[in-house]
Amino acid sequence: MTILFPSLAKRDSVTNRGHSNSELFTLTYGALVTQLCKDYENDEEVNKQLDKMGYNIGVRLIEDFLARSSVGRCHDFRETADVIAKVAFKMYLGITPSVTNWSPAGDEFSLILESNPLVDFVELPDNHSNLVYSSLLCGVLRGALEMVQMAVDVRFAQDTLRGDNVTEIRMKFIKRIEENLPAGDE
Amino acid sequence: MTILFPSLAKRDSVTNRGHSNSELFTLTYGALVTQLCKDYENDEEVNKQLDKMGYNIGVRLIEDFLARSSVGRCHDFRETADVIAKVAFKMYLGITPSVTNWSPAGDEFSLILESNPLVDFVELPDNHSNLVYSSLLCGVLRGALEMVQMAVDVRFAQDTLRGDNVTEIRMKFIKRIEENLPAGDE
Repeated sequence: MTILFPSLAKRDSVTNRGHSNSELFTLTYGALVTQLCKDYENDEEVNKQLDKMGYNIGVRLIEDFLARSSVGRCHDFRETADVIAKVAFKMYLGITPSVTNWSPAGDEFSLILESNPLVDFVELPDNHSNLVYSSLLCGVLRGALEMVQMAVDVRFAQDTLRGDNVTEIRMKFIKRIEENLPAGDE
Repeated sequence: MTILFPSLAKRDSVTNRGHSNSELFTLTYGALVTQLCKDYENDEEVNKQLDKMGYNIGVRLIEDFLARSSVGRCHDFRETADVIAKVAFKMYLGITPSVTNWSPAGDEFSLILESNPLVDFVELPDNHSNLVYSSLLCGVLRGALEMVQMAVDVRFAQDTLRGDNVTEIRMKFIKRIEENLPAGDE
């Protein structure tokens, strides 16, 4: 399992990042993924756990986000997409993904990450070909948006770790949640 | 276990921090500790695992640290203490602990953390009274220093999570490592 752990092989990318504590975060996230790979039988289960953890983080992080960003209620999904890309990603990961590939109905879009801080130094070993390493991010987005009454589906459509040129997170609007559900663990 | 997970109960402290992505890091670290508490029988074993993970992180983080800090070789343990407190903690956690409580022989000191970013929002449940929540930090310090030929003992002497007024990390110099050991997992 140790090869999964971020190595220093690709450390050239270090200088490109603005957030000075991100290496510690990246390596700690690597320790979490490594631990889950030890705990669970297969990659699909690890992906699911990471997404679930992310959800629990998202439902908490949203309050911090709203307090610090001073962002108000979004009027449509396009505005939500812009806030996620330009404010939230910038605030928590130091990057600004581009928003693109809108569906004709305006209910789906993609976040394109030129670089993904979570995967710096990471190389997936062959026996983890189904691991979606950054699944936590999907859960965070899903949990956070649920707290502002938006049910969304979030998944990785492309991943540089799996040989794609960019990382693409696909987000689909499902429905507006009418009731104020109490925050809680899944 | 969910109560262990950082809650938003104490979110006043959010505004005091300089590193904008630290909430995500704090919550992700909380997910890691929570997972380990599920995986291991007792707190002592969790502490040990966190320390071990930290060690593996430290042996990797040191190269990033040396590259970005431009810090050269320290001439004595006092200089090492200053670099850890003023450069390393500042860089990765956004805080500057004070260096104090030197032993007469000059081989032991304490880092006093007025606030610990890892424990924002965290409250330890009663059934985890032996959990040293931030043990990862001890391992990081131990691993990083080992890579620059210093064997040290690192432990928490005080912890705000356990009711102390400050968090105190005690560091003891053991020996200078003569050989260049290859970096590797413990």
